[in-house]
Amino acid sequence: MEQAIGNKRTLEVCFSPILYPYKLIDKDYVVIIVDVLRATSTICTALDNGAKAVIPVAKVEDLKQYQGNGYIIAGEREGLKLKEADLGNSPFNFTREKVEGKTIVITTTNGTQAVEIAKGADDIIIGSFLNLNAIGNWITEQDKNVIILCAGWKNKFNLEDTLFAGALVEYLSDSLNFHFNLSCDSAIAALDLWTIAKEDLLDYVEKTSHRHRLKKMILDDVIEYCFTPNVTQVIPAFKNGKFVDIAENKIYK
Amino acid sequence: MEQAIGNKRTLEVCFSPILYPYKLIDKDYVVIIVDVLRATSTICTALDNGAKAVIPVAKVEDLKQYQGNGYIIAGEREGLKLKEADLGNSPFNFTREKVEGKTIVITTTNGTQAVEIAKGADDIIIGSFLNLNAIGNWITEQDKNVIILCAGWKNKFNLEDTLFAGALVEYLSDSLNFHFNLSCDSAIAALDLWTIAKEDLLDYVEKTSHRHRLKKMILDDVIEYCFTPNVTQVIPAFKNGKFVDIAENKIYK
Repeated sequence: MEQAIGNKRTLEVCFSPILYPYKLIDKDYVVIIVDVLRATSTICTALDNGAKAVIPVAKVEDLKQYQGNGYIIAGEREGLKLKEADLGNSPFNFTREKVEGKTIVITTTNGTQAVEIAKGADDIIIGSFLNLNAIGNWITEQDKNVIILCAGWKNKFNLEDTLFAGALVEYLSDSLNFHFNLSCDSAIAALDLWTIAKEDLLDYVEKTSHRHRLKKMILDDVIEYCFTPNVTQVIPAFKNGKFVDIAENKIYK
Repeated sequence: MEQAIGNKRTLEVCFSPILYPYKLIDKDYVVIIVDVLRATSTICTALDNGAKAVIPVAKVEDLKQYQGNGYIIAGEREGLKLKEADLGNSPFNFTREKVEGKTIVITTTNGTQAVEIAKGADDIIIGSFLNLNAIGNWITEQDKNVIILCAGWKNKFNLEDTLFAGALVEYLSDSLNFHFNLSCDSAIAALDLWTIAKEDLLDYVEKTSHRHRLKKMILDDVIEYCFTPNVTQVIPAFKNGKFVDIAENKIYK
């Protein structure tokens, strides 16, 4: 399954979409987008439960054109379900019964905005703890530079996306056939924070600001699930305006 | 010396000037600017060695108006001394013999840009490991919210400024009369990274990208000095366009 890769590639972490224009890598790269709470965890769950595709849109008004055409409309702002939407942004909404065979149109506060800005990449892949090793393995098979783009919270740094970035950096550094430069301080910091947090991940997450934001809105029922590694093998990749599972399409699996 | 403070204040860390517009705090705040390698370490050293004031300017062309008028002109771009300047940006250049009684005009890649964007604050203070406890004590005597603004490297996150932010957060959290909210994930991350790094600070710094950048240019002779805590009691504060030592002016000391 795995191929030997000769070139040394660069692995970089962006802590916020607003830092993305200052990235080091400018060619021959894939972007891993991460919004652990909750957009990228939700997209992984939807595809794992048999959704055909997930179309990300940045603006609420972009949802209109899809309404009444057989799509499932999903979206939130500030963590709350939009009135225009069939579903909110909790991964628990995207059950097999609801999504199998369907195409979902989704807009979220942070996640879909990150997709917009990453459009110069060779591949845009959705990452979450749920598919950590699956995308780790996929990356090791590419001969590409890698940018892990944390969606953050309204352009601010957040810990939960950073922890995922650290977990992925660790997974890749353990991979013998993937040699990369860690010349990026963000990647070093993410790895070190992950090293502290992984000893008791949920306890660490307890102190983050977004955890408290969700708790306040009684949306924190998803925390444990969103921090569970490797519940799915999906590799959501952005193809022709949609996220489709390239693992399921036998490109990877 | 210390006064009891009743109100709970917010302590926030910005990892880059580009993240500053997304800060939480919008009133009643002081900004601590940090550019450990090397601008803020240099400003602390210059004032400690008797310089009267340090005028920060953002652009190289702004230096012209000061030339030939008794000022010491200092500046670098990309870590190298400008041809227009008398001194570069190494703190070792700013000896008592050279700077005592003089006003210095300085422009640097990252530090002076940070000063420009922080101008809405009640007070702008220069922070470095060299004056860590001095500004920690000064902050505990103010009844203000606090933003620690890391100058970063060309708007990118960097570890050395983050470590200083973490050290200052730790110092303040140890202070019994300064109660603050740590609702900011950046402050939590900075504190955790500092907790890892402080066990062997120079060894930790060895792996940062800027360390390697300076090494390449043989400008890394300042590293050990710039990470030495508490060699001076100066509190450089921005007053009427200049950084002056408010400790030396008996406002604090």
